[in-house]
Amino acid sequence: MALSPKLRRLAEALAELPGIGPLSAQRIAFHLLSDDEHAEAHRLAKELEDAAASVRHCARCNTLCESEICDTCSDETREKDKLCIVETPADQLVIEGSHSYRGLYYVLGGRLSPVENRGPEQLGFSRLIERIKEPEVKEVILATSFTAEGDATAHYIALAVSRHRPDIRLTRLARGIPTGIELEYTDVATVAHAILGRRDAESR
Amino acid sequence: MALSPKLRRLAEALAELPGIGPLSAQRIAFHLLSDDEHAEAHRLAKELEDAAASVRHCARCNTLCESEICDTCSDETREKDKLCIVETPADQLVIEGSHSYRGLYYVLGGRLSPVENRGPEQLGFSRLIERIKEPEVKEVILATSFTAEGDATAHYIALAVSRHRPDIRLTRLARGIPTGIELEYTDVATVAHAILGRRDAESR
Ligand SMILES: [Zn+2]
Ligand SMILES: [Zn+2]
Repeated sequence: MALSPKLRRLAEALAELPGIGPLSAQRIAFHLLSDDEHAEAHRLAKELEDAAASVRHCARCNTLCESEICDTCSDETREKDKLCIVETPADQLVIEGSHSYRGLYYVLGGRLSPVENRGPEQLGFSRLIERIKEPEVKEVILATSFTAEGDATAHYIALAVSRHRPDIRLTRLARGIPTGIELEYTDVATVAHAILGRRDAESR
Repeated sequence: MALSPKLRRLAEALAELPGIGPLSAQRIAFHLLSDDEHAEAHRLAKELEDAAASVRHCARCNTLCESEICDTCSDETREKDKLCIVETPADQLVIEGSHSYRGLYYVLGGRLSPVENRGPEQLGFSRLIERIKEPEVKEVILATSFTAEGDATAHYIALAVSRHRPDIRLTRLARGIPTGIELEYTDVATVAHAILGRRDAESR
């Protein structure tokens, strides 16, 4: 039994989402269309369009939000001398969930990847460097993932920081986090440990 | 850090899908909105609306398809004397994947559930009974899941079959399938075993 064309296309689109395999995608497609009015499918489509119409990148930290400047960047109680650089908003959420960091963030939106043709330009590194040049920044915490690409991204940023702001402290999360694992899949206790045990980056 | 309102609503809608937890839902929401044009979100919304516009229930077996009568029901090589009753199209797909059954299906679209207020009327049992009354049906295979609700659903159907068609054989999948597990999460080898080892239902 093959899925009908539109069902198959929907299942294929769902299977491209992170963490959803082909069988889960089929189940979800059936679930979304199971009631006669297809209310679930219409509702999810509406939430997607609503979010797409409102969500944008914070002009300051590049995370996803619905205003020019996100709540975290607008929060006057944040420690403005610390800037934590993460790959994704999901990584940022994990660090926030660890309650071990009160500084600010910069969200890269990915990491350097020759395979996927993502270089410093695609990741908007010029904006990041402008941000790092601001005099209030006294420490940059490199919180990219401990993968080959994450390490290369951290190394690249470390070089740029050394060039533009040789005076500031440059740290990397402590290697309490298992190697080869995405940061966003790490439990908050381990993340808290890694934040508190952060150390000076090797490139300095 | 809280998610912004529209992101949170999208994550909540995603978290209601089968097999997606709250953290996965957040990750998927970020993923869908990460590129500047929100192309992924628009694409998924479009696939949902396209499918919702075309997908309907087969007039004969109630599965999800895009024509009046689905491909399986239209297939002249199918054994018309056997009718396998499943809860969902996903269950049907698992049985098809086991390559151990060449008869026809009836898809309930759920199971009896007092908790969720789903009785024989909500599941359209009158249509099922009309189907069972057709003289070509010689065997009904009850393939509802081995859960309390799935067993109750099978029992209810068994009583109806006994009343309307006391002449036909009534079988239940062999209990090779682990109890308390949804049929759709079962591996195909186990399903094949259960189909081949099916036995007469206890209610006869
Ligand atoms: Zn921000
Ligand atoms: Zn059909």
